[in-house]
Amino acid sequence: MSRPLITSSSNPRLKAVRRLRRAPRRNGDGVFLVEGHRQLAAALEAGVCVRELFVAPDLFLGDADVELARLAELRGADVVELSREAFASIAGNARPDGIIGVVERWSVSLDSLRLGPNPLLLVAEGVERPGNLGTIVRAACAAGADGLIACGGGTDAFHPDVVRGSVGTLFKLPLARCDCSDAIAWLRKRDIRIAVATPDAALPHWEIDYACATAIVVGNERYGVGNAWVDTADELVQIPMPGPADSLNVAVAAGVVLFEAARQRLQTRAVRAS
Amino acid sequence: MSRPLITSSSNPRLKAVRRLRRAPRRNGDGVFLVEGHRQLAAALEAGVCVRELFVAPDLFLGDADVELARLAELRGADVVELSREAFASIAGNARPDGIIGVVERWSVSLDSLRLGPNPLLLVAEGVERPGNLGTIVRAACAAGADGLIACGGGTDAFHPDVVRGSVGTLFKLPLARCDCSDAIAWLRKRDIRIAVATPDAALPHWEIDYACATAIVVGNERYGVGNAWVDTADELVQIPMPGPADSLNVAVAAGVVLFEAARQRLQTRAVRAS
Repeated sequence: MSRPLITSSSNPRLKAVRRLRRAPRRNGDGVFLVEGHRQLAAALEAGVCVRELFVAPDLFLGDADVELARLAELRGADVVELSREAFASIAGNARPDGIIGVVERWSVSLDSLRLGPNPLLLVAEGVERPGNLGTIVRAACAAGADGLIACGGGTDAFHPDVVRGSVGTLFKLPLARCDCSDAIAWLRKRDIRIAVATPDAALPHWEIDYACATAIVVGNERYGVGNAWVDTADELVQIPMPGPADSLNVAVAAGVVLFEAARQRLQTRAVRAS
Repeated sequence: MSRPLITSSSNPRLKAVRRLRRAPRRNGDGVFLVEGHRQLAAALEAGVCVRELFVAPDLFLGDADVELARLAELRGADVVELSREAFASIAGNARPDGIIGVVERWSVSLDSLRLGPNPLLLVAEGVERPGNLGTIVRAACAAGADGLIACGGGTDAFHPDVVRGSVGTLFKLPLARCDCSDAIAWLRKRDIRIAVATPDAALPHWEIDYACATAIVVGNERYGVGNAWVDTADELVQIPMPGPADSLNVAVAAGVVLFEAARQRLQTRAVRAS
């Protein structure tokens, strides 16, 4: 298999990748960057379209990387080989493993969410730091959420640091991006209870029942959840903090509430089964 | 109050600050960088020694920043004023607020931990990413932990991104850094139960009782908890993950177990009080 080889970091295709990393939203209307074996494997498994794959075989860790490139090629990716130096010019990871893909974005409308019975959803309002949103995606996916609704501005859901922080789960968890008002209307129409996590609430987060259809809402890193969500909430809950700190990282807060919901749901299932 | 003014980014003192940011461990034997009003306020409140304070009044958000600089000066800090451009050369934050301090490190030996009755501790083994360790410090502090033991290598606990991620709680939560074997011996000597969080465990994390003296152990981002901890553990627990993802960010995992412990402790207290 003979592939084109790029050895110069000033090659226009590599310049395009660097632009995509610098300003994903401006330069990535239709595509986004996915770096590393684990992430690309998840992308291919999910069946998303990998348009270009840049590989540096000198950096490969083993045969699995060769296989991954072959699979991407079979699926229609334009695979380009890079010298170690040329790859370094586009790598974002501290320890690059020689694999970066340019992947097509997919639809993130609310209609793309498919819900099972008694769905569990996570709503992230205005989360600004892509690393936080990626970590939230990973936690929501692990907790068994049916999907994530990112609303009210904030980071691009396809930012390279969202992809990295999600450790491949961005390709597994159904995702929607919309205005807050649309998200609220969509949840209301489906009779999904809205549980807003905010430090001002009186009720501990473990006091409500998560077994029914529920959307857990977390807010912006500095300002928390906005009034639209607080005003419409069916439940306002807080995470009681017995220590001297009075706030949590938003991804940790989302994880704490999501896994309380998972605990209740698993325990309910266990009781029913026994 | 007349202070020295630096307008050139090539000033040797600013070069020293940049070196400290690039390689905190190599260049920061005795000191570390603390950036931003909220963090410096926490440092001063905790009574740590702020050796130098670099301020750019052009970037101040309000009078509180002026007051903070005055307080630092009263406490013996050498306060230096910088032009906006000179400050930009040492700033690490995307939105610098004109305040960076050079702060003395303190002792992080196990002996510096002071325990109340039935202490709750968090052990972080080999956590590599400073942002993760900072987020763990914040979560442990909020959950009411008595202290954090960072062991088995990993990031410098005084890395600028630990400070930033901890949002000031690095100055509130007692911290120790040591070898794993020393940490284990220290916990054993004090009859503190060791509960290790690892995906291989059978027991859900909520099935154990956290009301007694307990150390929760989480491990490295890629490799998890090492054998020394698994072999010595009194309890091995996992966070059940009903979704298709099978792992969590280490700070989220720490948060989930810590706040399960906090929930149990608060509920026990509520039952006793009623």
